[in-house]
Amino acid sequence: METILNFLPLTGEERAAFAAAAPGVEQIFRPVAATRFSPEAPEEEYARATVILGCAPTDRVAKAGQLRWLQTWSAGVDPYLKEGVLREGAMLTSAVGAYGQAVSEHMFATLLALCKRLHQYRDTQNRHCWAPLGEVKTLAGATVLVAGTGDIGSAFARLVKGMGAHTVGLRRSPERGAEGIDEMHPLSALDEWLPKADVVALVLPHSPETDRLMDRARIGRMKEDAILLNAGRGSAVDCDALAQALEEGHLWGAGLDVTSPEPLPEDHPLWRAEHCLITPHVAGGDHLPAIRDRLVEIALDNLRRYLAGEPLRNRMK
Amino acid sequence: METILNFLPLTGEERAAFAAAAPGVEQIFRPVAATRFSPEAPEEEYARATVILGCAPTDRVAKAGQLRWLQTWSAGVDPYLKEGVLREGAMLTSAVGAYGQAVSEHMFATLLALCKRLHQYRDTQNRHCWAPLGEVKTLAGATVLVAGTGDIGSAFARLVKGMGAHTVGLRRSPERGAEGIDEMHPLSALDEWLPKADVVALVLPHSPETDRLMDRARIGRMKEDAILLNAGRGSAVDCDALAQALEEGHLWGAGLDVTSPEPLPEDHPLWRAEHCLITPHVAGGDHLPAIRDRLVEIALDNLRRYLAGEPLRNRMK
Repeated sequence: METILNFLPLTGEERAAFAAAAPGVEQIFRPVAATRFSPEAPEEEYARATVILGCAPTDRVAKAGQLRWLQTWSAGVDPYLKEGVLREGAMLTSAVGAYGQAVSEHMFATLLALCKRLHQYRDTQNRHCWAPLGEVKTLAGATVLVAGTGDIGSAFARLVKGMGAHTVGLRRSPERGAEGIDEMHPLSALDEWLPKADVVALVLPHSPETDRLMDRARIGRMKEDAILLNAGRGSAVDCDALAQALEEGHLWGAGLDVTSPEPLPEDHPLWRAEHCLITPHVAGGDHLPAIRDRLVEIALDNLRRYLAGEPLRNRMK
Repeated sequence: METILNFLPLTGEERAAFAAAAPGVEQIFRPVAATRFSPEAPEEEYARATVILGCAPTDRVAKAGQLRWLQTWSAGVDPYLKEGVLREGAMLTSAVGAYGQAVSEHMFATLLALCKRLHQYRDTQNRHCWAPLGEVKTLAGATVLVAGTGDIGSAFARLVKGMGAHTVGLRRSPERGAEGIDEMHPLSALDEWLPKADVVALVLPHSPETDRLMDRARIGRMKEDAILLNAGRGSAVDCDALAQALEEGHLWGAGLDVTSPEPLPEDHPLWRAEHCLITPHVAGGDHLPAIRDRLVEIALDNLRRYLAGEPLRNRMK
């Protein structure tokens, strides 16, 4: 007996497709806006759910004693991999692959804005001031270091290559190349590449290895006029160290869609850093309509596979 | 007898190359920062100059009674084409071709910033506010109308095509295609294409035909959520009409590197338009170091050609 607890924010048509994919199976629809991360359902529904579709809170998932499969709405699944969250033997699948286009485009837009000083021109615009700010940058001939070359990093690399950049990828298994990456090295080569890169783009999952990866020392190893981007996990950059480096005039600029802590506290010095462009973790999410369609497609396809006893896509556990 | 009045902002090495290109010829170096448009020289130097390199003021050029050739530092040369500026029979050459990369990259960066709401996120950043602003745009599948498909328009079209856009070019002679343009139409097809375009990008030279081309009526014909870009001549857009349209909630946004009048007066309502991103005519100029190199190369090559009696490049008159 299956009970599906479906938290996905579906249209009427999509909901009908999910219902049709599981004929004769109990499916409880409790749609949640994708930007809210606390799907609400009575405890007894969690207790009898065998399938959860969507990012349910970990403390609730921990009480889902019948759970066989959880499909997230996110690419990262690290909260669900912690001890005691998922029931022994339960499968976990992510939405990895759905976010490549949106996140890479957002990173690319942020990078170009920094290169052309658009963040600073927005400030002068707000002062009604017509004043050139001097030299700008191009990506033509630039060396762009991409740490984390999955779906997102690879799409980002393709975009910067289109502007004439040379792309250097870093990944745990460098023997696996990635589209858009001109040369691939192990993540351990980071310190060697930092002083050579014009752009350092981080698209790393959270792990003990990537926690505070860009600390004061490593930010200091970057070129004086380099650009740092982070759109992976906020924990990969020491935001206090970055604020200090920018204040001291190190780096051309930084573009952050994720921070640590997150949200960034109101009094954090990074808010005031002229050369930092901050967006509130919006590169992914479902702010781009095309993403939603892909998220729904992955979940629906996996539901069909699950009920047919076939292997699931994006299996993380 | 030749006298060269050289206003170009050259390095020592470049200056030596210009001197070497004209052995035995009087060459007066009066370097001017490229962002200043009023090269100063004594009247008698203008009076005996046979060659002027750089954008001298038109009232001075009008008094250069020996002038045989003027090489501008700009792509547009319309001020020099007016009656009574250039001496009868004098040649005019421009720096067209030097600005394609810089201006197209700036337009592309502005477009992506608007698509991803980076201008608005800069505003929320300045309020120390972590708040998602909702839906963003992609260029994948978008129809981008490029009015003016010379060097700059063609380079811009190639960039947006790289993001998956369909490009429609408008030019006076549509039978001449342009790289990056999927389909070309005459400029007279503008009214027909405005309601179909997701992005309208203007890279038009100044002419009676393009003056106030985007007036209230034509802005009104654009899609509700379209984006308007202008990096050609400010006169192509009625800035009052644009400010009003934006205030009424028409258009997704606008990106202007040129305005009319220019500079934009301090009390102009466009400064306050949340969905307008304004840069102070900096897309070109020599803010990108690579441009300067190209400008110098064109002028130096033309100087060699002139003294050898060969046809000049970028001949405008």
